[in-house]
Amino acid sequence: MRRIPILLILTASVASADEGMWTPDNFPSDMVKEKYDVEIDQAWLDHARLSTVRLSTPSGGCTGSFVSPNGLILTNRHCVDACVSEHTSEEYNAWQEGFYAKHPGEELRCSATHVEYLHDLEDVTTTVHEAARGLGEIEANKVRKQTLTRLEQDCEEAAQGALKCEVVALYNGGQYFLYAYKRHDDIRLVFSPDIEIGEFGGDPDNFSFPRWTLDMSFLRAYDKGQPIASPSHLRWRAAGADLGEAVFITGHPGSTQRQLTVAQYEFLRNVTLPNWLLRYVELRGRYRQFASQDEEAYRIVQDKLKLIENSIKVRRNELHALLDDDQMERKKRQEAELREAVTSDSELASTVYAWHQIETAQQAYLTFLEPYILVEGRGGLQGRLLGFGRILVRAAEERDKPNGKRLRGYTESSLPGLEQFVLSGAPVHARVEELEIAFGLEKLQEWLGHDDPLVRKTLGNESPRSMAARLVRDTGLFDPEVRRKLWDGGSKAIRKSKDPVIRLMRALEADSRALLERYQDEYQAPIAEAQERLAAARFAVHGTSVYPDATFTFRISYGDVRGWEENGKNVTPFTTLGKAFARATGELPFALSQKWLDAMPKLEMDTRFNYVSTLDITGGNSGSPVIDAEGNVVGLAFDGNRHSISGSYWYDIDKNRAIAVHPAIMLEALEKVYGADRILAELEFADRTD
Amino acid sequence: MRRIPILLILTASVASADEGMWTPDNFPSDMVKEKYDVEIDQAWLDHARLSTVRLSTPSGGCTGSFVSPNGLILTNRHCVDACVSEHTSEEYNAWQEGFYAKHPGEELRCSATHVEYLHDLEDVTTTVHEAARGLGEIEANKVRKQTLTRLEQDCEEAAQGALKCEVVALYNGGQYFLYAYKRHDDIRLVFSPDIEIGEFGGDPDNFSFPRWTLDMSFLRAYDKGQPIASPSHLRWRAAGADLGEAVFITGHPGSTQRQLTVAQYEFLRNVTLPNWLLRYVELRGRYRQFASQDEEAYRIVQDKLKLIENSIKVRRNELHALLDDDQMERKKRQEAELREAVTSDSELASTVYAWHQIETAQQAYLTFLEPYILVEGRGGLQGRLLGFGRILVRAAEERDKPNGKRLRGYTESSLPGLEQFVLSGAPVHARVEELEIAFGLEKLQEWLGHDDPLVRKTLGNESPRSMAARLVRDTGLFDPEVRRKLWDGGSKAIRKSKDPVIRLMRALEADSRALLERYQDEYQAPIAEAQERLAAARFAVHGTSVYPDATFTFRISYGDVRGWEENGKNVTPFTTLGKAFARATGELPFALSQKWLDAMPKLEMDTRFNYVSTLDITGGNSGSPVIDAEGNVVGLAFDGNRHSISGSYWYDIDKNRAIAVHPAIMLEALEKVYGADRILAELEFADRTD
Repeated sequence: MRRIPILLILTASVASADEGMWTPDNFPSDMVKEKYDVEIDQAWLDHARLSTVRLSTPSGGCTGSFVSPNGLILTNRHCVDACVSEHTSEEYNAWQEGFYAKHPGEELRCSATHVEYLHDLEDVTTTVHEAARGLGEIEANKVRKQTLTRLEQDCEEAAQGALKCEVVALYNGGQYFLYAYKRHDDIRLVFSPDIEIGEFGGDPDNFSFPRWTLDMSFLRAYDKGQPIASPSHLRWRAAGADLGEAVFITGHPGSTQRQLTVAQYEFLRNVTLPNWLLRYVELRGRYRQFASQDEEAYRIVQDKLKLIENSIKVRRNELHALLDDDQMERKKRQEAELREAVTSDSELASTVYAWHQIETAQQAYLTFLEPYILVEGRGGLQGRLLGFGRILVRAAEERDKPNGKRLRGYTESSLPGLEQFVLSGAPVHARVEELEIAFGLEKLQEWLGHDDPLVRKTLGNESPRSMAARLVRDTGLFDPEVRRKLWDGGSKAIRKSKDPVIRLMRALEADSRALLERYQDEYQAPIAEAQERLAAARFAVHGTSVYPDATFTFRISYGDVRGWEENGKNVTPFTTLGKAFARATGELPFALSQKWLDAMPKLEMDTRFNYVSTLDITGGNSGSPVIDAEGNVVGLAFDGNRHSISGSYWYDIDKNRAIAVHPAIMLEALEKVYGADRILAELEFADRTD
Repeated sequence: MRRIPILLILTASVASADEGMWTPDNFPSDMVKEKYDVEIDQAWLDHARLSTVRLSTPSGGCTGSFVSPNGLILTNRHCVDACVSEHTSEEYNAWQEGFYAKHPGEELRCSATHVEYLHDLEDVTTTVHEAARGLGEIEANKVRKQTLTRLEQDCEEAAQGALKCEVVALYNGGQYFLYAYKRHDDIRLVFSPDIEIGEFGGDPDNFSFPRWTLDMSFLRAYDKGQPIASPSHLRWRAAGADLGEAVFITGHPGSTQRQLTVAQYEFLRNVTLPNWLLRYVELRGRYRQFASQDEEAYRIVQDKLKLIENSIKVRRNELHALLDDDQMERKKRQEAELREAVTSDSELASTVYAWHQIETAQQAYLTFLEPYILVEGRGGLQGRLLGFGRILVRAAEERDKPNGKRLRGYTESSLPGLEQFVLSGAPVHARVEELEIAFGLEKLQEWLGHDDPLVRKTLGNESPRSMAARLVRDTGLFDPEVRRKLWDGGSKAIRKSKDPVIRLMRALEADSRALLERYQDEYQAPIAEAQERLAAARFAVHGTSVYPDATFTFRISYGDVRGWEENGKNVTPFTTLGKAFARATGELPFALSQKWLDAMPKLEMDTRFNYVSTLDITGGNSGSPVIDAEGNVVGLAFDGNRHSISGSYWYDIDKNRAIAVHPAIMLEALEKVYGADRILAELEFADRTD
């Protein structure tokens, strides 16, 4: 570590109490010991890591935890939306009624879902930095990616296919770790509650508290048709944690941006967030109106609608956070401090150009950002069909190249995920596809203008709506077998295909790749280089007393059970079951199902339902177990309060709260509402007395 | 005028060349003479004023001009949308096919449209300022409004009902003028083109140039069943104006905000614009999806969709403008200069508190802004039915009070407009109403939260969607006769009504008025007082070398025909007909109708179509005549380029352009496509040779 200029007070950039999503190799056990007087040792950390899975679904990433020796996984109801949709049909509305596999043989395959847990990790920072040293930023960016691919390939070959390897950049490239995952592709649905309680409060209550949502479900990992063995798993503590008690959370938080430069925050505020919101708030309106057309429409669009409403709430509040001039001033002061620290240190002085380099890259990006996002980023090419088309066309071309020369998303290590997505038997709904394709093409036309060459090439003489109708009518890609033939057939099959979706994506491929190349060379490369230098400066100044931004990889946070003050009023940290009945209006999303109404006389009305803690979490932590110092499950995280959304950029212990389902309500519901004895037995609560 | 501190250079706040929407009493003829060497005298100004009408329609305000002695009015196609919708049915699709009244008796009544022109004007600043002098800001706000009502009432009584009087606050209350209007309520549709050419390019082309849109229509004002006499009217110059020629525009521009404080701009950027966009972009999505459901849905939602898409484009670009840090810096410098000027002048020194007062009022407003906008502002109570309900309930209560004690929108002077709106026979479409009411109630629930007392009072145990369905099913307010009875029956009829819409609006009335009162007392009053002081300071420093912000009242701008530079390329100022044919794809909004395709052999392909000029305009100028120095029509304004939208906050002669329809294409179309001989004769182009 470098010499620290003594006169500067740099505490503002260092993690404050309860802040941080820490990597398993750098968990601040000392700080936890000091604040909470509990010991978190390596065995605890390893057990927590091996018990926690990353859950990948078509609607995004979540966390889950093994809670039995037989691969039983606890996660959120909203993390199994895609699977529930897959098994919802006119005959059985699993979305509405929920699902419980009374017998082991009834557990339902989730075709596009997989889980993995972090088996090993290795610091490869030196290898990656050395490989790119002395190269220009564009070349360095390429060599860096090739190095990551090579490291991953070597790791997977060494494990003889038993592990999936992934290099993760931490601290914006200040550190690189090689993570080796144990992956399971055969995931089945064991239990999910009815929609009324599983989403009680729906979008209106999302990101708010007090709350009464039983956002829980169980999955099970299988291998060769049998439940896997999961020796590392968590036991439950039915009574939950007490007010003020230290709690922990493990999981795979998706993405935070706490270490950006002020220019990057301004770019998010001025460009990225408004543009995204302007497009997706409209799509939300289309989904909503579509849902009101008929029962089928309502059913097939529910998972999309939930996902988009959640994303909108997040981004809306992120924008709100960045418009807070006081917080921006704080970021400016921190940046000024770091700038001063580096200029007064001869070894770091060249870092001062990094800020300017980022601004220049942003200016360059602005000149092609819209076509990049709309065409290469598929903002103008929406829907799963076009997603299949893009992957099929691109994978065919990439697979003809040696692994080291491929685009990062198409290396050997990435192929199983792509293949699972493309070949999944999950239904693709023509009406939703047509809505989404028309929407995307309209945005393409609106944002780039009718006369733009890419718009002309895409639409020809068709309107977005007619083109969407034609693609949906004439494509064969609804059929997984057709997709399989194209996947297996490789570049020859793609070249010969007359499928209109394949033709469209083929016609756009060269332009789209050119945009990707500009993005990589003119934006990503200089930013990566600048951020790496800034990260080095931060390490020199702060050491590893800071944690890296979330990267959808394994992290641990700590905190305690605590309410907060809102407009001068205390928000108490626990809710109880009775109020859910009092608050129900009988209309969704504030209705309770007949199952619950029938069970009412048997239920304990003072059962704890949801509660909040100071745990620092973000999207991707959905489904994370809240754990006590003994390693027992004392909650199931499913949301944060509204303030927690600004956690994308900063953590405020006075306001940010994680929201969890209490174990008491989960057990109460499993026993008295759903009669889920098989699960209770597996959790070792067959005869509950707690 | 006060002493000006000599050392300050204050040019930045004064109008630059071609900038400004000038009042008729303060038109800068000297500047025009100096730059363009043309004389604009009082007779020219009076004639232009008396020939220009303000057009009020259910979809907003526009401008028109008399172009014959028989009350013929030229305006935009998009300004008669509501009237065209009114006459579109399953039998005749006037929206699609356009309309031409071959015979005088065929002209179609536009039931909720009226026009008025500015007959007289009188400076009443002293009266208004004196009335409120020495009072606290809340009391001053009340007395000021009472004074305006009294001035209007006296004016209307003096005119014995022949004029409609309105006091307008200019320079944010720095000046008050009493404007007396001649009003005509019986307005009929004479001509509008088919949708293909009338909206060629549609939303994708809106606010862009080059352009090929025949956005024209003709109306006629009637009195007692006969066309009115319009001795003041404009003649046409078929050849239009030349490149670089001085042109003028008269009209009723709606609203600009060029004289706000920096805190007010930040409020717009951080609160007003994002919140509006987040709601209405979603509504746009609902309309779009609704339009795709079936032909009827498409037809009945078109006018709403157009209006909202236009508003979204405006606000999206306004937000973009306010996110331009360079422009904000310029505003900050101007504000700092004014602040320095006032602090160095003992008579103005107390003005320095005005800035703080505005910020304090904004902070106060933030605490109730959302319920105010959603309930009193009807953001959560959408649709015409709830609009009728609000006006009926409120008018009943207000009409029981003496005129001087009423809310400003319910004085005797305002009643004819309210009555025309409420009793209009224009169709109210149940399906659109249900969509809008459900949308509004969902936003009410989403933004205020399910547990908010106002949300509870509104929704009870219903969901937004069930409540919307019930209101639409059970209300009688679709029938104008039912509305007439409630209007005529006054407060007694309202109290006794069991209509569910009336009941809802009645139940919310007290809360809604309380919000209005808070808005007036805690926000409007202190802001008005502060702005008046700032206006006085600006007058002291700049005199009337500045123009007031647009207020939907009569203004004149000047400029010249000129292109601009975009990304290093020159945009030429004229388009010609041939390119419209070349650009047509055959699919809306880039299709040409059969009428045009049939007429193609007869048409002159080099006919000038649309063109741009430096004229400073804004929304409300739609339909404004572009006039040459001789007072002839040389164009019909219908849009601005994208840059012109930042004209809400500042004018930039290098970028801002007004877009107009060229007279040559209008005459070509009337003669060769529509065979509108009767109109050509009336315009004195019966035998065109030019």
